[in-house]
Amino acid sequence: MKIAVLGAGSWGTALAVHGARCGHSVALWSRDPAVVAGIRGRRRHPRRFHEIEIPDTVSPTSDPAGTSGSDLAILAVPSGAAGAILEMFGTTLGGAPLLSAVKGFDPGTNRTVSRLAAVSAPSSEFAVLSGPTFAAGLLARDPTAAVIASKSETTARWIQEALSNAALRLYTTSDVTGVELAGGLKNVIAIAAGIVAGLGYGPNTLAALATRGLAEIARLVTARGGEPDTLLGLAGVGDLMLTCTGTQSRNRRLGERIGSGQPAADAMAGMGEVAEGARNCLAACALAAESGIEMPISEAVRDVLYGGLDPAAAIGALMVRELRRE
Amino acid sequence: MKIAVLGAGSWGTALAVHGARCGHSVALWSRDPAVVAGIRGRRRHPRRFHEIEIPDTVSPTSDPAGTSGSDLAILAVPSGAAGAILEMFGTTLGGAPLLSAVKGFDPGTNRTVSRLAAVSAPSSEFAVLSGPTFAAGLLARDPTAAVIASKSETTARWIQEALSNAALRLYTTSDVTGVELAGGLKNVIAIAAGIVAGLGYGPNTLAALATRGLAEIARLVTARGGEPDTLLGLAGVGDLMLTCTGTQSRNRRLGERIGSGQPAADAMAGMGEVAEGARNCLAACALAAESGIEMPISEAVRDVLYGGLDPAAAIGALMVRELRRE
Repeated sequence: MKIAVLGAGSWGTALAVHGARCGHSVALWSRDPAVVAGIRGRRRHPRRFHEIEIPDTVSPTSDPAGTSGSDLAILAVPSGAAGAILEMFGTTLGGAPLLSAVKGFDPGTNRTVSRLAAVSAPSSEFAVLSGPTFAAGLLARDPTAAVIASKSETTARWIQEALSNAALRLYTTSDVTGVELAGGLKNVIAIAAGIVAGLGYGPNTLAALATRGLAEIARLVTARGGEPDTLLGLAGVGDLMLTCTGTQSRNRRLGERIGSGQPAADAMAGMGEVAEGARNCLAACALAAESGIEMPISEAVRDVLYGGLDPAAAIGALMVRELRRE
Repeated sequence: MKIAVLGAGSWGTALAVHGARCGHSVALWSRDPAVVAGIRGRRRHPRRFHEIEIPDTVSPTSDPAGTSGSDLAILAVPSGAAGAILEMFGTTLGGAPLLSAVKGFDPGTNRTVSRLAAVSAPSSEFAVLSGPTFAAGLLARDPTAAVIASKSETTARWIQEALSNAALRLYTTSDVTGVELAGGLKNVIAIAAGIVAGLGYGPNTLAALATRGLAEIARLVTARGGEPDTLLGLAGVGDLMLTCTGTQSRNRRLGERIGSGQPAADAMAGMGEVAEGARNCLAACALAAESGIEMPISEAVRDVLYGGLDPAAAIGALMVRELRRE
């Protein structure tokens, strides 16, 4: 099978290598010529995973036409770029199924990728990949599990078969809405978890905050027509646990810096890579308002990042909400 | 209010100090005269939390009669001792409400404490306390959240009011079955999580295993008449996350030792304190069989601990179960 991976960041690169390990021929598109040259010349990504040799069956390209004729396209770009990249590739895909590995929202419209793809790539079957998957772990062949969500069970199972191996176990579900929302929202909770850790609170506080975060994600998923049961699975609890407790999460690191006293604007500016949650909190709050529900943790993260709210005051207020039924 | 805390282990001691901080007078019962003498003489527990001064309003006693006349009794003993202690105190309680802080099962009958209490203390209203609560965190006044479950909403709310302060936020629920089962079963999953870590697998694998663990807990809770939504809350996800990722969990430490190569029997014998999951896996497997459901992680833990199963083979088998819908 020929697979196109759109985007050669950490996760796109890991998925390209994984696709090659599954026996597929992979076209890896990056808009960065240095990445293309580095992989083509030295079989190494110039900025990531220096110890990983990228197999010869991964062909880097900066030309969208280099991905044409693929049987499957995997979108692995930051959520802020997804809309533009999908427009650029819509016709190149030629109706091949599209698998989104994006966790976030279009900044202008707060839409998830499934909604963007319905416009830009309407003849492609759509699926989304999510779960507790640090790129480095997949590359190291740590046993990893994730879900493929698609309204088309045939498509979900076809992708499941194509991308499963001993290192990656894939499960299927039809709940595209729940999986996309959970993936976009957990990064926001991870920033709050980082703030808690940066402030010096211990594991009881972190676990309480993450649990309340899962509850607010569940409220939005339910309000938008997704299935709350999805939150009990890999794309819900699994990814939230990884992101809130794992040291490899950029979102958690951003929160830690802010909790430790760095001004929010400086902390955001100082992150080498995008912390998706810093944008996703805006979409979360907008969707919550539109749906008439409360998302107090997402609102607190937004106000800390953009409204000058003191992080200690924000966490304090979250932890002393009135006594009530869970 | 006068509170009796039965058991002066880590959690019982923390709850006694917490009760005193809430303004109550606490009788702390221990069968160990050294504990009673240490607290009475030096206001310190002789074996735990040396930095914590135990308030004067905590009165240690090794005489069950020293707890009589209490308005509330909190049971905080290892699950293996709960049945005997409840029989010993049944009449002393004099119908005062009983709050179980036990996470586990009676070894002989696989019953949870609510079932034991219905026999030994039938005139006491019953409630159970659970959630992500390391004793050290509560003593350090880290903001901590937990649930009080009772069939009696009046009792749940009365305990909520009595034991909430700035450090401990309590929520209420009526799902005694779900809260008790989740509390007993998460320790089993934590042993498996420790084995995964001890074998050298990374955070992707740990998160996948914990998520599959939550799914098997949900299956048993549903089969026994509890509410699966409880698993999304503090007593479910919250406690599981804390126990699987926290370094203070005895169950996780037991698993780490076994994953690192120590024979299971030696690892169990070498634990200073009881790892509840080592007993609870037996109850979990028995209840699963009785209910006709699969609990593959609990069965793997049982077979590693008592059946000579190789830990690497056990985890390998769990991670390669056939592809399927989540």
